[in-house]
Amino acid sequence: MRIGMIAPLEMRVPPVAYGGTELLVSLLTEGLVKQGHEVTLFASGDSRTAARLISVCGKFLRGTPRDKSVLNILNVVACLERADEFDIIHNHTQLEGLSTAGLVRTPMLTTLHGNLKDDWLKLFRQYRGWYNTISISAKRLLPDKERFAGVIYNAIDVTSYPYNGSAPDDYMLFLSRISREKGTHIAIEVARRLGRKIIIAGNIDTTDRPYFEEEVLPLIDNDLIRFVGEANYSMKRKLMSGAYCLLAPITWDEPFGLFLVESMACGTPVIIFNRGSAPEVIAHGVTGYIVETVEEMAGAVGKIGEIDRKRCRQHVKLNFDVPRMVNAYLDVYSSVQEEAGTKRRREPIETGTQYL
Amino acid sequence: MRIGMIAPLEMRVPPVAYGGTELLVSLLTEGLVKQGHEVTLFASGDSRTAARLISVCGKFLRGTPRDKSVLNILNVVACLERADEFDIIHNHTQLEGLSTAGLVRTPMLTTLHGNLKDDWLKLFRQYRGWYNTISISAKRLLPDKERFAGVIYNAIDVTSYPYNGSAPDDYMLFLSRISREKGTHIAIEVARRLGRKIIIAGNIDTTDRPYFEEEVLPLIDNDLIRFVGEANYSMKRKLMSGAYCLLAPITWDEPFGLFLVESMACGTPVIIFNRGSAPEVIAHGVTGYIVETVEEMAGAVGKIGEIDRKRCRQHVKLNFDVPRMVNAYLDVYSSVQEEAGTKRRREPIETGTQYL
Repeated sequence: MRIGMIAPLEMRVPPVAYGGTELLVSLLTEGLVKQGHEVTLFASGDSRTAARLISVCGKFLRGTPRDKSVLNILNVVACLERADEFDIIHNHTQLEGLSTAGLVRTPMLTTLHGNLKDDWLKLFRQYRGWYNTISISAKRLLPDKERFAGVIYNAIDVTSYPYNGSAPDDYMLFLSRISREKGTHIAIEVARRLGRKIIIAGNIDTTDRPYFEEEVLPLIDNDLIRFVGEANYSMKRKLMSGAYCLLAPITWDEPFGLFLVESMACGTPVIIFNRGSAPEVIAHGVTGYIVETVEEMAGAVGKIGEIDRKRCRQHVKLNFDVPRMVNAYLDVYSSVQEEAGTKRRREPIETGTQYL
Repeated sequence: MRIGMIAPLEMRVPPVAYGGTELLVSLLTEGLVKQGHEVTLFASGDSRTAARLISVCGKFLRGTPRDKSVLNILNVVACLERADEFDIIHNHTQLEGLSTAGLVRTPMLTTLHGNLKDDWLKLFRQYRGWYNTISISAKRLLPDKERFAGVIYNAIDVTSYPYNGSAPDDYMLFLSRISREKGTHIAIEVARRLGRKIIIAGNIDTTDRPYFEEEVLPLIDNDLIRFVGEANYSMKRKLMSGAYCLLAPITWDEPFGLFLVESMACGTPVIIFNRGSAPEVIAHGVTGYIVETVEEMAGAVGKIGEIDRKRCRQHVKLNFDVPRMVNAYLDVYSSVQEEAGTKRRREPIETGTQYL
């Protein structure tokens, strides 16, 4: 199959720092190429790929004074101008791809990695392509069921995560962005209630700095509660495989938590609040526990010995490994192509019909 | 001719308040319709036109919390989706139209109303359509001569400006945005040097508020120097036709000054600094004076009696009236159409070739 793959330009593919979408695009692209598909990747020029790479800019945009909206549109347009070369266009941007899909004959699939915000949610009905979400939970708010192509979970390269089947170190782990949404303060509260050790690892965004300084920093005692900063590639794997459980007291409906999958791949079960995609990613009682309150979370820690770490690893291999995701996307590509051949195109907007 | 006309959504067409581009679009659109051309106007839903109106949003965007980038792209896309219905697309947006012109077969003409800033200037070479500027001066900075379709000056509806051929009131006029670029403080300095009356009229943008309070307000004495706020439709015409001259001590390269044309239409000559398009709009010694310094401006006021006010009005009728502009655009539409038929389309961007 001939695929035009559009990545955001915020970070290179694969990312050198935080960049969940760019990592996903990389795993998918390399997986498709390995299967012999012809992929053209539209991404920043410093990206690394076995696919054909076409770039409107040499370097990724995060931290530069470049006009991002301009370059992201040109990146999508660079792909659309070659639309005839592709059987399908797989778009990972929002505004830029969603608004322009109707201008080419080649069908577009958009993967919605984050939530559509504000005006975009209302305007989604003008989108002329198909879309998939990364969890059932993420699909709930979307108005247009007609062009929905399915749920495809994100994946990781399981072989790159070290499995630790026995005798983990004596600590629980919180590993995520330090923020109220991720519930750093709740993880600490659970550890303090139980008098058990927890390691806090994660980056701190500028907007979360006051939260960190007021609600997290005062509780760090470097004994029970340790803070180790942002974990890089190898440190993350070491921390995850060494913990006896990961705490995920999320306070928002996260569409998909890649860090949960990474933890289970190392054999480490997850205790998580019942929000967003939690019940889709964690098998309750098998790879961890899904709980409703702080009390329940503390209680679940006591039962963590009942979880078989081998089952955690297996769960990820079965459901969240790259080959499964690649095949799922190939299936969706085919069904979108088929639908595009039979379905009437949406008409352009008419006099008297406004989106907003 | 069948024309797809794309307006910015910032203000309705024609504007209820400040909106130079939207006013131009209105005059051009109505002029084309009057000549029997088939125009589809893509503009906010509250616009008023004899053309077919297609709108992605009901009301203009200035002052609303709407996501402007989203709606401006959808507005352009609404036109591009109907590209086959048009002989030419006339685009008055920047980013949105300039980036997407290559996605349709119908040729696009873009009128550059303002300066292209920052990244856009560098990225201009990817534009797949043609462009015109509103003065020779405005063309100077643009890198791409190949797709340049000509200079077409903006126009006014001369009949809507009252001509005052004799005995003007005893004041000079400054009528423009109150700002350093427009040189409000210099106009006042000229009046003070000469001990002559000046009326200052104009809106004050938020960014220009400190300038107004520090450098203009202290000099208002309500005797020699009067400030009357922003002038509406009829007040502007009254002030302009009553003045014996307009002072325009601009300190930037204004691409085109519509207020200069309006003043001359009323019979009122203009004394202006030699910046931007000044020598293209003002006929030195005939419809006013083009000067280099504050001293020269003050000196020119003394010679204002030598200017024949009738010649000012004639100059505007000849060069800046709507029918002339409409015909100039029709000529450019034809030559662009012809070139589009013979010229090879630009190739999409290739691996290893980056814009930035």
